[in-house]
Parts: sequence; structure tokens; C-alpha cells
Amino acid sequence: MVNRLKEDLVETGQFGRTPPKRVKRYDQLSPIKGVTRPSGTEENRKIRDYAVARMKEARLRVTVDQVGNIFARKEGSKTNTGVVMSGSHLDSVMNGGMFDGALGVFGTIEAIRRMNDEGFENERPLEVVVFTGEEGSAFSPTLLGSSVLVGKISVDEALGRKNAGGQTLEETLRSIGYKGSFQRSLDDVEYFVEIHIEQGSILDKEGISVGIVESITGIAWLMLTVFGEENHAGTTPMRMRRDALVAAADIISFINKRANEMVERLGTATVGTVGKLHVFPNGTNIIPGQVEMGIDIRDVVQANMESLRDETLKVIKDVEKKYGVKICTELPPLHIPATLSDEVVNMIDNSARQVGVVTRRMNSGAGHDSQNMAERVKTGMIFIPSVKGISHTPMEWTNWEDIEKGTKVLTQTLKNLSKL
Amino acid sequence: MVNRLKEDLVETGQFGRTPPKRVKRYDQLSPIKGVTRPSGTEENRKIRDYAVARMKEARLRVTVDQVGNIFARKEGSKTNTGVVMSGSHLDSVMNGGMFDGALGVFGTIEAIRRMNDEGFENERPLEVVVFTGEEGSAFSPTLLGSSVLVGKISVDEALGRKNAGGQTLEETLRSIGYKGSFQRSLDDVEYFVEIHIEQGSILDKEGISVGIVESITGIAWLMLTVFGEENHAGTTPMRMRRDALVAAADIISFINKRANEMVERLGTATVGTVGKLHVFPNGTNIIPGQVEMGIDIRDVVQANMESLRDETLKVIKDVEKKYGVKICTELPPLHIPATLSDEVVNMIDNSARQVGVVTRRMNSGAGHDSQNMAERVKTGMIFIPSVKGISHTPMEWTNWEDIEKGTKVLTQTLKNLSKL
Repeated sequence: MVNRLKEDLVETGQFGRTPPKRVKRYDQLSPIKGVTRPSGTEENRKIRDYAVARMKEARLRVTVDQVGNIFARKEGSKTNTGVVMSGSHLDSVMNGGMFDGALGVFGTIEAIRRMNDEGFENERPLEVVVFTGEEGSAFSPTLLGSSVLVGKISVDEALGRKNAGGQTLEETLRSIGYKGSFQRSLDDVEYFVEIHIEQGSILDKEGISVGIVESITGIAWLMLTVFGEENHAGTTPMRMRRDALVAAADIISFINKRANEMVERLGTATVGTVGKLHVFPNGTNIIPGQVEMGIDIRDVVQANMESLRDETLKVIKDVEKKYGVKICTELPPLHIPATLSDEVVNMIDNSARQVGVVTRRMNSGAGHDSQNMAERVKTGMIFIPSVKGISHTPMEWTNWEDIEKGTKVLTQTLKNLSKL
Repeated sequence: MVNRLKEDLVETGQFGRTPPKRVKRYDQLSPIKGVTRPSGTEENRKIRDYAVARMKEARLRVTVDQVGNIFARKEGSKTNTGVVMSGSHLDSVMNGGMFDGALGVFGTIEAIRRMNDEGFENERPLEVVVFTGEEGSAFSPTLLGSSVLVGKISVDEALGRKNAGGQTLEETLRSIGYKGSFQRSLDDVEYFVEIHIEQGSILDKEGISVGIVESITGIAWLMLTVFGEENHAGTTPMRMRRDALVAAADIISFINKRANEMVERLGTATVGTVGKLHVFPNGTNIIPGQVEMGIDIRDVVQANMESLRDETLKVIKDVEKKYGVKICTELPPLHIPATLSDEVVNMIDNSARQVGVVTRRMNSGAGHDSQNMAERVKTGMIFIPSVKGISHTPMEWTNWEDIEKGTKVLTQTLKNLSKL
């Protein structure tokens, strides 16, 4: 049975493959070509068409909403009961992996095929969903399709978003044939489940095939520009300097040290990262005059995340005084942490036991459409391992045995939910 | 009289001006267009031609050596005495200033014009020199022409050097008409003097018009590549990280802290700078997998410079252990500090007193052709202030009154040396 799902993933994993690119870390060519199918591209159309064909084969009724979200419905034996929805996304980052998102769509289709095969009669309606633009690789922000579905972003605002080429989402959806007219409300939806690769290394390191997500991390970004004074590295005595990079180094060290302390002393799930840093003018013999930094702070507890961000803002004030620099801060809107539904979490746990799969409860450190869905319906997530925690690169991989175990748990969960 | 020199500098300051460019520090257009005349370019030919015309007007005999160094000679009344040489360079950095180098060439020509005007009879021969490729902006290494003259680099090696366009120095010299055949030996040269802008802010801050250089700094570069592990900033717990930028931050902080300590506690003239830093892959939500760093360490005392470099290498070992990263180090050849001639330094001092100009003794934090010349002949340098210490940018400026005072001191010094 798993061969059918494997075939879907291997086949669609060929869509939007790009030529091998130089991997900067190793200064050599990447061994695998990466998947590139941002929303609204021709490659994105190909995988949508493939998925729709499989949905129809499975005798599902397919509709497309105004922002290109796809819904594929299997009616249930009871009327007037809330829908059980399950799915993920088919868009990708640039040069990414073949499992990210696609697994959640084809995994759900496979679950329904298995129900069909064994003649399982669901009471609640089941719906496979494909969300538009989860990655934000063509149209910002991330989680675009689910944001519209839960009412955070209006249909018009989403359709008017432009990609790097200046085309609107509406134009690209029309050009690939996925500008629908359906207006999906969530009023009749009771449950949402998403199966996804972990994109972290916890399950892989522990050798556990299935993770049950309890919370999805919140994200606080902090964008800084440090203004120092560009000067000659040889002729400017130490006491006359206002070195923007020396100031930045204190901030980098603080965030790492404090996040580690929070984890070790308070047992939080906090992470803090300075992932982006640009130095100007960036010559070995020139004192840096300006540094731009992008800081990423996450925690499943909003107060922890805000505490690290606020402490960092205080340290920034100290650094300004210490080094005579000026630091401008920009705070993009917070992503609030999402707590998933106890009822669904427990149901996944019970379903896993039913099919004999060992699980562990965990948090998601990455953002997912589930965090939007959790604001409106009872939501749960199933994680399966990413080999070495690698994702968003062509080297992303997940073992087929883990995919089979995850699919078993998903199928059983959807079956159980549909009978509730 | 100064109007003649001002005219030379203003006129040649127009050669190789480039369009206004965006200044990254302020995100606006630079107010002044920068001078761009790397060795062997058409703009470099223009300023060489201009200088040669002035030399000939001053009745000097002009010769060009095999690597394009220009010599312009005024015979003296005595034979069999060592030459007094003085000069600097006419090439520039990309988008630099109009005084860097040009002042030393046209200042010496002006000094000889003044001697001509007053009928001064020099006993030793006087020679104006223009060194090829001081800045290294077209052909590496820096100080190319003087390196050949003192015998550090062979003529053939220099001529075979290629610029970014793949042309050799020989080809570009031929194309601009400055591939000479003269073979200048330094055996008959007794003294060398160079007048140059300070390119630092000491004279400007202290309001002193003339600095007498006693030592030229040595330079130790240290190029590092920190190899960590690229990973997702959200899904990788703090304890599972090998963050290349966090490791780099410790090194940046150490160099700054230790150089400051050396200056404050030991009274050294040490400077230490991390001027260059590149992060890979450089995304806010990705843990940095690799960081490349360029470190610049300088001191007029070789042992101090080496001590800071060696302590940094030890810290690098600690950082590797602390963060589980691997750091590759590359150590380009040292520039050894140069001590200038006491005899010439004292002569500049006495000459300044003769013409009533206040001076201060100081070190040079930047490299100059004088450091090469000092290895073979008795050498001295005269500094004049750079407004706000700014150089190597279009904003480089020096006040005309300071140029006049410097030229007076240079003229008197050359006169005195020529009678020794």
C-alpha cells in the first residue's frame, strides 16, 4: 500500500527540480537537485494537477476557493456533523525538499484511499485540503492560504499580493487555472489534522517514528541596524573607534548565552538565533561603519519569547552607550504560539497505540498552517522524522518506513475522528 | 605660490572621477564623486602625463623604469654624492580621494619649482619619484613599484601580475605608454622623503599641521573560516547547535578587548579590527553554518603585533572546543614594521623650525612606499592632516593651509638634505 504513496511523492518530487547549485558550505555542487515550486508557478500547477487527479481517482469532490486553496471532500454517512479536515501545502521554498508539505497532502489522500479499499464508512465528512502559499516563497506573508481561511487576511488583500516579478497572486492563480470561486467557511469544520516532516532532529536522534505536536512555537523577529563610524583600521586608535561589528558581537553573544540559560535554568523551549548579518563596507582593513542583523526568537510560551526579546532590547541600550553606536530596531508583528487541541492530541495518541506505533509528544519549532487552523477548529499535528533534521534544502530526507508509520497513525486518527 | 600646487591637485583630482554612488552608511548618494585611477588604466595615464608635463616644465630629466616607476632628476652641483629622492604614487583606490599619493608627487614637484624660482643650488642630485601600484587596486600586492625598486619582487614577477580583467601589468603599462627600460638601482641614493596625508585623525583632532613619522606600522592579517552546522533556527534546540556566528562573535570581542587592554595597560600602539565578515547562508531563520572573517592587526612594534595574533590563535582553539566548530586559519605574509631614519626625522624637525611650522612626532598606521625605501636608504615621512581622518573615500579632504605648511617643511628639508 505504501508503494502508492511513495509513487506519489517520488513522482511529484521531480516537479520543479532545479539544476545542481553550488553549496556555499562545502564549495561544491549539491548532490541532489532541489524542488522549486513557489505558489502560482508552472511547477506549482503541475503538482496541483497531479494531486487533483489522485483526489478524483479516490472519488473525492474537488473545489477551489477564491485564493486557490483546494478542498477534496468525501461525504459521510451522517449529515449535520462537523467536517474532519486534513492536509498541508504543495508550494515549496526555492531549492527545497520533496517531503515538506507534499507529504501532508498525499498522506491524507492515501489515508482516504485506504478507507476506500477496506470499505470504511466515515460518519463525518472528510476533506483533504491544499493550502496556497504556505512557504511565502512567492507571495508574503507565509501561511497565506490558511490566513485567508481563518479570516486573518481578506481575500482581496491576498489576491493583490505581488511576487518578485510584480504579478499578483490573482494573476498567477488564473494563469495556472486555480483561481476558484468557492467561499469556504470553517463554521462546519470540527477537526483539523496535519501530518508533516519535523524539519528538526529530535525524532531522528531519538529513533522515534512519530511525534505528536502539542504546541507550535511563536516567533518574534528583531531587525537591527547598528550605526557606528567607518574608519581606517590602521590609522584609527582603539579609543577613537565606534565599531559597529564589535557592538553587534555583544548582542550575538548575549542572545545565545541568555537563550541557553533559559533552557538550562528554567527548562524553557526557548531558541534565539542571529541568522542574518551584513557588514558595511566589509573590507578587512576598514572599521565596520554599519551592521544589519536579523534576530529570530522562538518559544511555545509567549511570555518567554517576549522576555528574551525585551532583555535583548535592554542590552541594545547598554551596547549603544558602551560603544558610542546608534542602533535602530524594527519589530515585525509577533507570531503568537499556538496550543493544539488536547482532544485531538489524545486521539492521535490513542490511534497510534491502536496501530502499534511508538510516539513522543513534542513541540513544533517551525511554523505551519495548523497554527492558523488552531485558532478556529480543534487541531492536531503528526510529525515524522527528518534525517539529520535537514529541511528546506535538496538534502531533505525522510525514511519510507517512517512515512508508513505516520500514515498508519494518520489514517487511524481520521477514522476515529470521523466516528466521534 | 601655493596656487600652483593647488591647481595641480584640483586639476588632476578631476581625472578618474566616477559617478556619485550610493553610500551604504547613510543610504544616500555620496556628495562628492570619487577618484578612480588604478595602475595601468586610461585615468592613470592621464595623471601620469600631467605629472610628466609639470616635471619637464620644471626642467627635470624624466625616465621610466621597467615597471613604470617614473624618476625626474634635477642634477646637483656636486658629483659622486648620493641622490635625495622624494615622491609618492599617482594610482588610487576605487572611488577614493584626490590627495592620497598625488600630494606627495606634486608637493615634491612644487618644492623643486620653488628652488628653481629662488635660484637655490642643490649640491646632491634631487629626484622626484612616482611609484607604480601603491594601492594594489589593480595589481596585487600593494607597494608594487617600490617593492621592485628595493628588490623584494623581481621585475618579471611584477610585470606578470594580472588585474581583474586578466591583463598583465606589462600589457597595461605598454597600452598607456609607461613601459620603460630604465633600470634604477638604489646604490646611489642616500635619502628618501615622502609627504602624504595622514589618513587618520590624530593631527586633525590636535590641530597640528605637520606630523613627523618615526615608525610605520606592521600589519598582520588573519583570515578565518568558521565551519559550524547550518540548521533551522526554530527546530534546533540550543544544546544541539554548532553556530558559526556565535563562535565568530567571541573572536570579534576578544580582539577588540585585548587590543584595548594592550593600549591602556602597556601603552602600546596596537590596533585590532575584524573588518570583513560574511555569513552563510545568511537568513534570519537559519543557524549560520559558515562564517568567513578578515582580521587586521597592527603595531609599530613587531612583538606586540605577533603577540596579539598568537593570542587570537589560542582563543580560536578555545572557541573550537566551546562551540564544536572547526576554524581554518590563513596567515598572509606579515608586513614588518619600519623604523624611519633618525637623521632624516631630525632633519625634518629642524627644517620645520627653520620655516616656523609646529610639528608633532607620530607613527603611521597605514602602509606606504616609505616602508620599503627605509630598508635600503635613509627615509623620512611628513604627514599633513586628513579632515576627520577620512581617506580612501570621495569625502577625503585636507585643508590648503596645511598643504602649504607641509610643502614649506618638505622644501626646506630637501634643500637641507641636498647640502649635506
